[in-house]
Amino acid sequence: MEVEERQTRKGKYAADISSIKEAEARIRPFIHKTPVLSSESLDALSGRRLFFKCELFQKGGAFKFRGACNAVFSLHDDQATKGVVTHSSGNHAAALSLAAKLRGIPAYIVVPKNAPKCKVENVKRYGGQIIWSEPNMQSRESTAAKVLQDTGAVLLHPYNDGRIISGQGTISLELLEQAPQIDTIVAPISGGGLISGVALAAKTINPAIRVLAAEPKGANDAAQSKAAGKIVTLPETNTVADGLRAFIGDLTWPVIRDLVDDVITVEDNEIIEAMKLCYEILKIGVEPSGAIGLAAVLSSSFRENPAWKDCSHIGIILSGGNVDLGVLWDSFKR
Amino acid sequence: MEVEERQTRKGKYAADISSIKEAEARIRPFIHKTPVLSSESLDALSGRRLFFKCELFQKGGAFKFRGACNAVFSLHDDQATKGVVTHSSGNHAAALSLAAKLRGIPAYIVVPKNAPKCKVENVKRYGGQIIWSEPNMQSRESTAAKVLQDTGAVLLHPYNDGRIISGQGTISLELLEQAPQIDTIVAPISGGGLISGVALAAKTINPAIRVLAAEPKGANDAAQSKAAGKIVTLPETNTVADGLRAFIGDLTWPVIRDLVDDVITVEDNEIIEAMKLCYEILKIGVEPSGAIGLAAVLSSSFRENPAWKDCSHIGIILSGGNVDLGVLWDSFKR
Repeated sequence: MEVEERQTRKGKYAADISSIKEAEARIRPFIHKTPVLSSESLDALSGRRLFFKCELFQKGGAFKFRGACNAVFSLHDDQATKGVVTHSSGNHAAALSLAAKLRGIPAYIVVPKNAPKCKVENVKRYGGQIIWSEPNMQSRESTAAKVLQDTGAVLLHPYNDGRIISGQGTISLELLEQAPQIDTIVAPISGGGLISGVALAAKTINPAIRVLAAEPKGANDAAQSKAAGKIVTLPETNTVADGLRAFIGDLTWPVIRDLVDDVITVEDNEIIEAMKLCYEILKIGVEPSGAIGLAAVLSSSFRENPAWKDCSHIGIILSGGNVDLGVLWDSFKR
Repeated sequence: MEVEERQTRKGKYAADISSIKEAEARIRPFIHKTPVLSSESLDALSGRRLFFKCELFQKGGAFKFRGACNAVFSLHDDQATKGVVTHSSGNHAAALSLAAKLRGIPAYIVVPKNAPKCKVENVKRYGGQIIWSEPNMQSRESTAAKVLQDTGAVLLHPYNDGRIISGQGTISLELLEQAPQIDTIVAPISGGGLISGVALAAKTINPAIRVLAAEPKGANDAAQSKAAGKIVTLPETNTVADGLRAFIGDLTWPVIRDLVDDVITVEDNEIIEAMKLCYEILKIGVEPSGAIGLAAVLSSSFRENPAWKDCSHIGIILSGGNVDLGVLWDSFKR
């Protein structure tokens, strides 16, 4: 099935508008159609009209449930019964646990020991079985490999998978229906599952739409990859945005290369300022990774770039809200 | 005009379904149609299906903008030019400032010196002119009287006014369109402007709907008034819910007496627990007064009351989100 998904069904990319529409029909009974908020205060501050797509209100507190739900409900019954496994410190893990619970199958989640508390709590709340690993990729992968061997479960990668990309792409279907005047979409980039789904759907619906990625300077592999014309990985990452430390995958890269118009990088203090604005003005608790789109739109590198001068109606994907309140408060006091 | 509003236009009450529908048409260009959120986790916790009407996303961060906007845009031009005045520590002040700004008239706001910082900031942000008073009703009233004399502005009471009540009632029109399956509405009660508008509209649309007020035990004048069959005021109030310390007015009382089915009182710690759930599960920053509806639905006095056993689809009005993050965090740590 994976092989089929990766090689034969789609054309150039791992997903397309029809796999995204299929995903939409498949996950519709399970997901929240998230609202779009707006604020004249933030419009004034940015000098644009902003449309905040509130994926932090998605089940599990992040957009990840769309992809996880599509992947889990795409499995044949005989595959599904043995369960699913992933190694993820964050929102994909909770989302996969919830999707598996809805399908009535086990979810095995390999979690590094330094994962944020509220994200681990989310996994537990949704019935995921936690298997601890050391906080490095080697330990995570070897632990996951052992779980696969022991259980016969299906590994579901957090982003490098056509079913995941298709699920995330359903955000564009909703957003462009809710706010058809949008001429630009800004989304966070980490492994690229979100933005590649979003770009594939949005650019098929309206090829003139600009799709911009927002990335922390301390984990700027996407910006470097775009500049180099090939996937670049980094020896280490350093950012407050714990959800944005992954590197682009071989299935998301072609979409990012071809359909993402630019990568806007921002400093951690800009991310924190954006979180603060979300809390104070929009009244919502957005995690650092989730607030980065607003940070990008308010950044001088975006505002002063003549290429984006006529981006007047901007959809910003607030991708998640899983942040411990104490952490939020501490970061505001810095 | 006030006299007209109070005595001749309406029947038994200071507002009715037609004044509420007129308000809806008048304020529609200015207000946000706020979304309704739901959460299976909170449904499971409460044993009911809950529909959260997010008035914290209203302009100014609270439902108050509906009433203020209706009142300000109801004024004749010759009345309006001299401006509006109110004495309010909170959300009504910000809402009135914003409504006045939209109409291009001055707003004079008498604010007690102990008002929460973020609420004062909101008044300033919307261009209201702050006039400080001592933190007691006498000083607030005498200061307001002086402003009235000096400016010739119109006094707009935060709740004891048919135009305000009509504006707040537009919430029910939206909510029952967004979630028609609702059989019960729970709203905070302070002076009663919100709940009387909500009850008048909801019970006209569907007389079988239950309308329940949520009130802090430390400011339980509504519960006492309902029990006594007449308006009761208290020598003092003591609650974390700074927006719920006002007493019922003579225009809101008849509606509360006749159309509010019960008053559910809750302890401050239940309010704080509800705020915490709103933050952790719904990902939204609700102020104490705003979270009390959820606190009421989770309280044992509600759950164990056989009269409310068949309240299965409950609309909860999350009335405002103006809370300093530091205060929110401190209250969680108590």
